[in-house]
Amino acid sequence: MRAARTLMARKGIGSTSIQEITETADVGFGSFYNHFTSKEAIAGAVMEEAIESFGDAADQLAETIEDPAEVLAASVRHAVMRAASDEAWGWFLIRTALARADGFRRGLGRRLARDIRIGVERRRFTVEDPVAAMLATGGAILAIIAGRLQGEIGSDAPERAAALVLKLLGLPTKEAGRVAKRPLPAIAAQPTRES
Amino acid sequence: MRAARTLMARKGIGSTSIQEITETADVGFGSFYNHFTSKEAIAGAVMEEAIESFGDAADQLAETIEDPAEVLAASVRHAVMRAASDEAWGWFLIRTALARADGFRRGLGRRLARDIRIGVERRRFTVEDPVAAMLATGGAILAIIAGRLQGEIGSDAPERAAALVLKLLGLPTKEAGRVAKRPLPAIAAQPTRES
Repeated sequence: MRAARTLMARKGIGSTSIQEITETADVGFGSFYNHFTSKEAIAGAVMEEAIESFGDAADQLAETIEDPAEVLAASVRHAVMRAASDEAWGWFLIRTALARADGFRRGLGRRLARDIRIGVERRRFTVEDPVAAMLATGGAILAIIAGRLQGEIGSDAPERAAALVLKLLGLPTKEAGRVAKRPLPAIAAQPTRES
Repeated sequence: MRAARTLMARKGIGSTSIQEITETADVGFGSFYNHFTSKEAIAGAVMEEAIESFGDAADQLAETIEDPAEVLAASVRHAVMRAASDEAWGWFLIRTALARADGFRRGLGRRLARDIRIGVERRRFTVEDPVAAMLATGGAILAIIAGRLQGEIGSDAPERAAALVLKLLGLPTKEAGRVAKRPLPAIAAQPTRES
């Protein structure tokens, strides 16, 4: 995994071969298949790890930001920014997030569900139908990420996504726009790809 | 295409072979590859056609419904219902809709963009950021369809999806809930799979 992560970060997934991974890891070529069925399988595992690492980093936002709406907005902004700067990460998220039966019990879906729940409990969010709102919020973020990667929406997509999500969760329009533009704390996410 | 459509409708995509398709179409096995690279390719073409046929049928809603909010709500309800009754259709939509660069210039995305534009022009929808709202609406519908196929949301998903989408487009909560539950006209969409 470490060898694959390093090589894929340096060269991209397409240019990394199984042979290079096993050579870098100093193990036999055949032993690869004791752990993974294909290069796509190990690339998927590397991406899962990168998404989890991003999620852990974004979790730190709640330590310095008090307002649950601002916590969610900051996470959404970072996710859209990350996808734009690391397209393989963004496309992996788009391809996998809706296709998983346990999407809201793992990864970024679990964190989104948690952040919405906290906002509802603290009366910052007002949702009539929490399940539908949670699904819709997740789908809206993914679609704006896809739109960003396809050039439908520009470099201000992070703030526009955050404002829209906050409106969807019941904040008045102006308030949503204001919270979406507050100063954004950096997070310590590791890049998938070295830049 | 007609042979593939009929066989896949009757037996499902997984149980239909290229040989059966060419035998039913009364053409040589090899000639299949003049038109399609694989069974997945022709299955994709059949699905595209089924989505287009659904879109054409849903387009008829605007002929009998005056309110643009109700037109959109009815289309959303029919799409969620269709996905629940024809999972292959639903999953194809989820897998392909966000991955296309021209997603809002074709298929159901084009129709969604049109219906939102009409609602905005007729002052029925109030959106601050039309591009972000359009992306978010599409993503929200797809995510609720995915949630429906995965059992996260029950058989009232069509109305809940419609209410949420109308709220996202600026209708007040109660009004959105009311419009989402108006009597739903039938549409003449062809099923992909015979039932």
